[in-house]
Amino acid sequence: MTSQRTPQRADWRRNRERLLAAAAEVVARDGASASLEEIARRAGLGSATLHRHFRSREDLLTEVFHEGVERLVARGRELNEAEASKGLAIWLEELTRYTAATRGLAFSLRPTSTGTGSGCIGMLRDVAGDLAATAAAADRLRPDVTVEDLLALANGIAIQAEDDPDLAARLLRIAVTGIEPSREPRRDSRA
Amino acid sequence: MTSQRTPQRADWRRNRERLLAAAAEVVARDGASASLEEIARRAGLGSATLHRHFRSREDLLTEVFHEGVERLVARGRELNEAEASKGLAIWLEELTRYTAATRGLAFSLRPTSTGTGSGCIGMLRDVAGDLAATAAAADRLRPDVTVEDLLALANGIAIQAEDDPDLAARLLRIAVTGIEPSREPRRDSRA
Repeated sequence: MTSQRTPQRADWRRNRERLLAAAAEVVARDGASASLEEIARRAGLGSATLHRHFRSREDLLTEVFHEGVERLVARGRELNEAEASKGLAIWLEELTRYTAATRGLAFSLRPTSTGTGSGCIGMLRDVAGDLAATAAAADRLRPDVTVEDLLALANGIAIQAEDDPDLAARLLRIAVTGIEPSREPRRDSRA
Repeated sequence: MTSQRTPQRADWRRNRERLLAAAAEVVARDGASASLEEIARRAGLGSATLHRHFRSREDLLTEVFHEGVERLVARGRELNEAEASKGLAIWLEELTRYTAATRGLAFSLRPTSTGTGSGCIGMLRDVAGDLAATAAAADRLRPDVTVEDLLALANGIAIQAEDDPDLAARLLRIAVTGIEPSREPRRDSRA
């Protein structure tokens, strides 16, 4: 973009990044009801600047969630390469942890919702599908468990353990491994 | 006339039972926002009669939930006798199914809530504890999985699969057995 040359454009972009970084922190703590004033303050900017970048609370939250989902998608691709059949369980735990920490996202991803989360669901479902296919090929995912089941479990747990990402991760690990003791130690080709 | 006292008592009790039965059906369909007018109509009684029995929506819902929880508690005791170590999984599925069908209950049982569900949680936790102890004694429950974990999983799944008890039961079964194929067929002393 030729517009990148002008200092105003660089300022604009830098301010936007600072606002989004501040928003991610405040949303992680306070969920969708995060104070816009606090976000602006934490970014070292005024409320007017925030409102020039994001016309409404929903605009800002959508952007924050979108960035979070993009990170989760990138992380899923990385895990699918690096962890192979173990990637699915690791990723589901990270997804659940993130969703529990950002309360608005958990609710926006509930099946009845038609809001902010809809586009995000597609991106998450795609990467979850790739991870599930890798796990299934290594006989680490039952054929009757669908990607929708996995995302629904992760989201239900995140809603239940809202604001407690450690509990969310713990419950997700239980759901992935089941409540019974392992029958025998699992032998993996990869340590 | 003192001779009418007994029939009036009987009427009062019968009407109350009809109202509670109707309320259970409507709440199962519409959750905590169930229409009081519809409940009265379904019971074949007037709204005024409903309001004489239950002073507020919350009174009625509390009673409906209380009855549902009492049934679940009785069922848990029965399963603990009849199904022994398999009782826990069966009961958790029934709990999840019931909670998904009565939306208000799912929310009232969330950890942050201090409302209607608080007393119910204690009753459910006790019977869940008995079932868990039986399962643990038969090596069908990992020692690091607590009763709170089990109730949290059941409730999170019920919230996620609100209004879809079949999906809720399916997700609960996945969480109980884990997402991987069984390592070997499970041998039970009981068929």
